[in-house]
Amino acid sequence: MSRTRIHNLSISLDGFGAGEGQSLETPMGHAGERLHEWMFATGFGASLIGAESGSEGVDDAMARRHEEGIGAEIMGANKFGPPGWQDDPEWRGWWGETPPFHTPTFVLTHRPWPPLEMAGGTTFHFLDAGPAQALEVAREAAGGLDVRIGGGASVARDFIAAGLVDDIHVVVVPIVLGRGSRLWDGLEAIERDYDVEAVSTASGVTHLTMTRR
Amino acid sequence: MSRTRIHNLSISLDGFGAGEGQSLETPMGHAGERLHEWMFATGFGASLIGAESGSEGVDDAMARRHEEGIGAEIMGANKFGPPGWQDDPEWRGWWGETPPFHTPTFVLTHRPWPPLEMAGGTTFHFLDAGPAQALEVAREAAGGLDVRIGGGASVARDFIAAGLVDDIHVVVVPIVLGRGSRLWDGLEAIERDYDVEAVSTASGVTHLTMTRR
Ligand SMILES: NC(=O)c1ccc[n+]([C@@H]2O[C@H](COP(=O)([O-])OP(=O)(O)OC[C@H]3O[C@@H](n4cnc5c(N)ncnc54)[C@H](OP(=O)(O)O)[C@@H]3O)[C@@H](O)[C@H]2O)c1
Ligand SMILES: NC(=O)c1ccc[n+]([C@@H]2O[C@H](COP(=O)([O-])OP(=O)(O)OC[C@H]3O[C@@H](n4cnc5c(N)ncnc54)[C@H](OP(=O)(O)O)[C@@H]3O)[C@@H](O)[C@H]2O)c1
Repeated sequence: MSRTRIHNLSISLDGFGAGEGQSLETPMGHAGERLHEWMFATGFGASLIGAESGSEGVDDAMARRHEEGIGAEIMGANKFGPPGWQDDPEWRGWWGETPPFHTPTFVLTHRPWPPLEMAGGTTFHFLDAGPAQALEVAREAAGGLDVRIGGGASVARDFIAAGLVDDIHVVVVPIVLGRGSRLWDGLEAIERDYDVEAVSTASGVTHLTMTRR
Repeated sequence: MSRTRIHNLSISLDGFGAGEGQSLETPMGHAGERLHEWMFATGFGASLIGAESGSEGVDDAMARRHEEGIGAEIMGANKFGPPGWQDDPEWRGWWGETPPFHTPTFVLTHRPWPPLEMAGGTTFHFLDAGPAQALEVAREAAGGLDVRIGGGASVARDFIAAGLVDDIHVVVVPIVLGRGSRLWDGLEAIERDYDVEAVSTASGVTHLTMTRR
């Protein structure tokens, strides 16, 4: 059975998955890179940024789960580009010509574009659709594999709230961002639907994994 | 040198130190006892509620730090009683005739009362004063020992924001409360002033300790 999964969603202590003021120069707003430093320090993260090597402990093992068995991703418009990217016909996402998704990737936006076929197996499809309908389309495209909800926090929250997510991996980074895009809003008592595990690691982050009952 | 410390401040994943709807029947609002179950399962917590025994691991060791070397506590009006306790001349706090503080205990309120002398060394003093001034008074009363900021979240937040707290022990409980009294609001980038450690334990909570640099 195809599962719907969230991986490596990094939030601050106060629950923000990105800062305020997202722009071309500051994709994560005032959060900068701080939410993902733990990941870039792992072997998995190092390979993403072309660094030579990284750690191979629990952080790395958890980070690598992002890839395994995934047949499609769904992401929000604000993960795909800075505010207003829909007005820039040259925009092709943050990730260059070979994005690290390697599957059909569905971008939720109220101003959809025709598909963008990239190198390495990623095709961006643009969808104006609610969570359940988007998941149906993505699952079809995933060919029996799992669907990753790639974030940001607002799209993750919407899919969790709709009861559509089977596996949630959130990484709590010990910083206080104060403002930005919040993950937990509207998810009161969500723990009742999940088996929850929290494990801190030497890097200072806490891996929160929630598996649907 | 007398330090100012926070201990056992238990918050949900979304940062709430109490739920909404605090009342005589529900002191923690809709959170119920869930924020403190980890503590009542320890030897320290068991002794507070008259239970026979409890765990003796990291949760217990951390919980016991609440007591060591404390000469006074400062708490908020909403920790001392349900909304409106100031109108009930019989109210003497939640804890019976022998409260577990055993030191001068300063209750911040805009409607102060004369002091209440209880058994076991606790005297409640009522103060209408800003954080810095309240701390000065409490430190005087602590006779060279440390001052504990006893919560709730709103008073803890005010003292942290004012730069007055040296040691912060927050316990993150893996539940999502959705509403109530928030700890982190207004504390953006507070981690820069502290050495931060996050350690999860078998009970499922994560102990966050912040030591002022
Ligand atoms: N912390 C992490 O691990 C992590 C992971 C991924 C991304 N990020 C960062 O998080 C930020 C983006 O997150 P975010 O929470 O701000 O936004 P987001 O979830 O990426 O995107 C939200 C936007 O997607 C569009 N959208 C969402 N649902 C839709 C639907 N059902 N139908 C049509 N359009 C829909 C809307 O944009 P329009 O109305 O404009 O079309 C909405 O404003 C970026 O800074 C990104 O770099 C962080
Ligand atoms: N999670 C935990 O570990 C923990 C710890 C302790 C308590 N609690 C729970 O948390 C809740 C209380 O927390 P809370 O955040 O709602 O409130 P709180 O911090 O206990 O109290 C806030 C109130 O204290 C008074 N106050 C604060 N600063 C003042 C000042 N400088 N001068 C004068 N008065 C001042 C004001 O009340 P008035 O204007 O009404 O006088 C204010 O509304 C209770 O449910 C309690 O059981 C939880």
